[in-house]
Amino acid sequence: MELEKVLPEEIEKRSFEIITEELGNHSFLPGTEQIVKRCIHTSADFEYAKNLVFSENAVEKILESIRNGASVVTDTQMGKAGINKKRLKEYGGEVHCFMSDEDVAAEAKRRGTTRAAVSMEKAAGLDEKMIFAIGNAPTALVRLYELISEGKLKPEAVIAVPVGFVNVVQSKELILTLKDTPYIVARGRKGGSNIAACICNALLYQLGTGYF
Amino acid sequence: MELEKVLPEEIEKRSFEIITEELGNHSFLPGTEQIVKRCIHTSADFEYAKNLVFSENAVEKILESIRNGASVVTDTQMGKAGINKKRLKEYGGEVHCFMSDEDVAAEAKRRGTTRAAVSMEKAAGLDEKMIFAIGNAPTALVRLYELISEGKLKPEAVIAVPVGFVNVVQSKELILTLKDTPYIVARGRKGGSNIAACICNALLYQLGTGYF
Repeated sequence: MELEKVLPEEIEKRSFEIITEELGNHSFLPGTEQIVKRCIHTSADFEYAKNLVFSENAVEKILESIRNGASVVTDTQMGKAGINKKRLKEYGGEVHCFMSDEDVAAEAKRRGTTRAAVSMEKAAGLDEKMIFAIGNAPTALVRLYELISEGKLKPEAVIAVPVGFVNVVQSKELILTLKDTPYIVARGRKGGSNIAACICNALLYQLGTGYF
Repeated sequence: MELEKVLPEEIEKRSFEIITEELGNHSFLPGTEQIVKRCIHTSADFEYAKNLVFSENAVEKILESIRNGASVVTDTQMGKAGINKKRLKEYGGEVHCFMSDEDVAAEAKRRGTTRAAVSMEKAAGLDEKMIFAIGNAPTALVRLYELISEGKLKPEAVIAVPVGFVNVVQSKELILTLKDTPYIVARGRKGGSNIAACICNALLYQLGTGYF
């Protein structure tokens, strides 16, 4: 099998061309196309063309939040590592992940709950505009749902893309019931920290120019 | 849909039970079962039961390398973030990622190649036992293949799991032709930094006890 000759700066463009070609006829909600395609780019999994669910005008609203300096809260260090922090910083936001914080670990142990759930509570105490990008822990999503339902947290948006087998599907369905919170949800079992990061980046790149 | 009641410390165990159940009858090469299952755990994608290829005694050899203090070289900061560095450190190894190094960026630009390729050359200059865990860049794999073929690098192993559409399949097939290098390859388009990290962790956890 021959290697394809592609210049370094052309690799991403060529990848998106292949994705577009293989997707064939596909209708996208406004603003969602590059998000769907970047998820496929990150995973080589075309299931993301079917499982991503966007609340009404979610993309538009999230872009507005980023422009207004919203930060991103995520539930893994991998997600944090993957998000384009330099780009986010241009609009004033930063990326928070409290999963490795000692106070979070101690509190989770004391209450017999997960660090992910406690890290959502810690985020709820911040006085910032926040977009939650959850790629790993269903327990983070469940806690987010509770905090929002109890009026203790009003996030700019929830990107709900945990991956796995225990309460993953259920926790995402909970987010889909939220009425006043913009969301992007990867329905079903699939997702991940890489998907959480790539959705954030796809949003950031829509704000820039010359990016996919 | 009801949330399943599972204690925080039981979530991973329960996930692996579900994976085992859904995999059904499946024969694994010795030592590979927990690697395959952890890849499925990380991706919710059962394709990893089919696409992972192990060179002869690869797992055994890599475990021995880790025990002897081998470090891991990876091609993304996300991969680095995901690898259990504390556990690796117990055996003397650390995780390197040169992708954000200024000298790597400058050299790549000068030569019109990718940072990933140059970061492999930088790694080749280290005087350490090294396991390469490549989850993103086919160009890293191609350069690794060249360096190994030219006798300029003798890695302990190559974990070859880039994801994507341009030269991903081809670069992995190149690694499969290596005769004296232990490898773990995710054949086809799928893989990722998360998969690279999870394979490293699955290996590390086999050295410990009480882990899956």
